[in-house]
Amino acid sequence: MNASENKRLLFPKGEKASPEYFTGTAWVKNLVPADDTFNTWIGNVVFEPGARNYWHTHPGGQVLIATDGVGYYQEKGKPIQLLHKGDVVQILPDVVHWHGASPDSQFTHIAINTNSQKGTVVWLEKVTDEEYYSLTKAATI
Amino acid sequence: MNASENKRLLFPKGEKASPEYFTGTAWVKNLVPADDTFNTWIGNVVFEPGARNYWHTHPGGQVLIATDGVGYYQEKGKPIQLLHKGDVVQILPDVVHWHGASPDSQFTHIAINTNSQKGTVVWLEKVTDEEYYSLTKAATI
Repeated sequence: MNASENKRLLFPKGEKASPEYFTGTAWVKNLVPADDTFNTWIGNVVFEPGARNYWHTHPGGQVLIATDGVGYYQEKGKPIQLLHKGDVVQILPDVVHWHGASPDSQFTHIAINTNSQKGTVVWLEKVTDEEYYSLTKAATI
Repeated sequence: MNASENKRLLFPKGEKASPEYFTGTAWVKNLVPADDTFNTWIGNVVFEPGARNYWHTHPGGQVLIATDGVGYYQEKGKPIQLLHKGDVVQILPDVVHWHGASPDSQFTHIAINTNSQKGTVVWLEKVTDEEYYSLTKAATI
């Protein structure tokens, strides 16, 4: 992390996200574990440009808070939404979705997995390049 | 909000916090309502220098994420802790505490009230000036 990133970002990058569930390079910093007191997992995720996670669901729901860069969010069957600093996404339980950076910008969000006693994440299939680039084919960012 | 604040901060200031539960000027921006899907209230709070909330508890617990400035956090019977950007505070259910800005700096945090189905907040008495200034009397910030 360079000095400018260090000053701008809230958290250090953390651990490299698993290539089993992420395409490209992303970093996950655990902030609050999913215990039976808070019933909430909280983490910070930094996606390098082009990086994204696989399609997945959260049995207890999730809230994303975009804090830096330009990101992508997509629910199955809907178009990709652009995310910018300060955007908040409420993801209902069991909704199939993915998130990540846009092709040309790093992206950082805080993830809040609510009702973690119901399970935090169910991973599904990879987001294909065709799915990922569907926005840039449709319009200029 | 001036241009520099606007660029730095994640969220607009929101609504003025109730003088019933806050000393000084603070602003609350609701991000996620306490509904029965997420069971979580999320909001952003900006405290002007010297501002703080009253002593209170959260029946379902709370997590604070400091995002800007220098803040104070105190649990009953313990010394005041300083909070800086990137600090995360886990507040157990029913622990009596307060938070706010330090005397000379604005402070901003995201507040995540977990298990909101158990109740989000129980307000208690005002934080006195003696309590608030106990840190600056003990040491230089």
